[in-house]
Amino acid sequence: MSAWENTVELDAAVSLRLLSDARMGRVGFWTSDGPTILPVNHRVLDGRIVFRTGLYTSVADGTRGGTVAFETDEVDDHMLSGWSVLVVGRAEHVEETVDMAETFHRLNEPWAPGSRPVVVRITPSQITGRQFTRP
Amino acid sequence: MSAWENTVELDAAVSLRLLSDARMGRVGFWTSDGPTILPVNHRVLDGRIVFRTGLYTSVADGTRGGTVAFETDEVDDHMLSGWSVLVVGRAEHVEETVDMAETFHRLNEPWAPGSRPVVVRITPSQITGRQFTRP
Repeated sequence: MSAWENTVELDAAVSLRLLSDARMGRVGFWTSDGPTILPVNHRVLDGRIVFRTGLYTSVADGTRGGTVAFETDEVDDHMLSGWSVLVVGRAEHVEETVDMAETFHRLNEPWAPGSRPVVVRITPSQITGRQFTRP
Repeated sequence: MSAWENTVELDAAVSLRLLSDARMGRVGFWTSDGPTILPVNHRVLDGRIVFRTGLYTSVADGTRGGTVAFETDEVDDHMLSGWSVLVVGRAEHVEETVDMAETFHRLNEPWAPGSRPVVVRITPSQITGRQFTRP
């Protein structure tokens, strides 16, 4: 039940780099069932978080608009040290054809929606990061 | 930007076991600054999530009462497979002396609040889990 004893705030540039290097994070939003946190594979494009999800999923429903949280972290096996980055921002679905085509092109991905045709984009309004260690 | 292609729901018993075996998760709540997700080192006691945090931290503020989310996951390095468990429940601070003493005793931890004197307890109202793989 121990927790990090020492926490150091990371600046926005470092936090954005950690977010960009990570390949997986968690999106958080409020639904009619309460608060939800679910993992996704993300990328960062022009400082905005982009990921795909399925139609009619709770992630799709929760990112149609409005404010969401996005978190990524890395903690070592023994919990001796780690960091986390938290983004708060506005989520939207990329729906305009040219916009979607350019997004896929720039991510160097084939435009093949498959079973995850919804492209979610989060524009950060706030990025914070923290590094923690145990004494 | 790829996402999990196959998702299988896990039952509540499996989800609770994964949650209990994990040593680190993320608590999500809504603050005046918007939605927040932050990592903590947790334990599970009698089916309830318990963790410590510092006084006057946003985690302490966000878990004083009301509904929160708690998530834990494990995803392999290449994002080929993984699972996540999501709990929705009511958070409270353990404040009564006997209750706190028993909590520390049962966790086999010395009752030494140190720099993290706030003991947070989440009583789940809902536990869901999912396992994902890429084809």
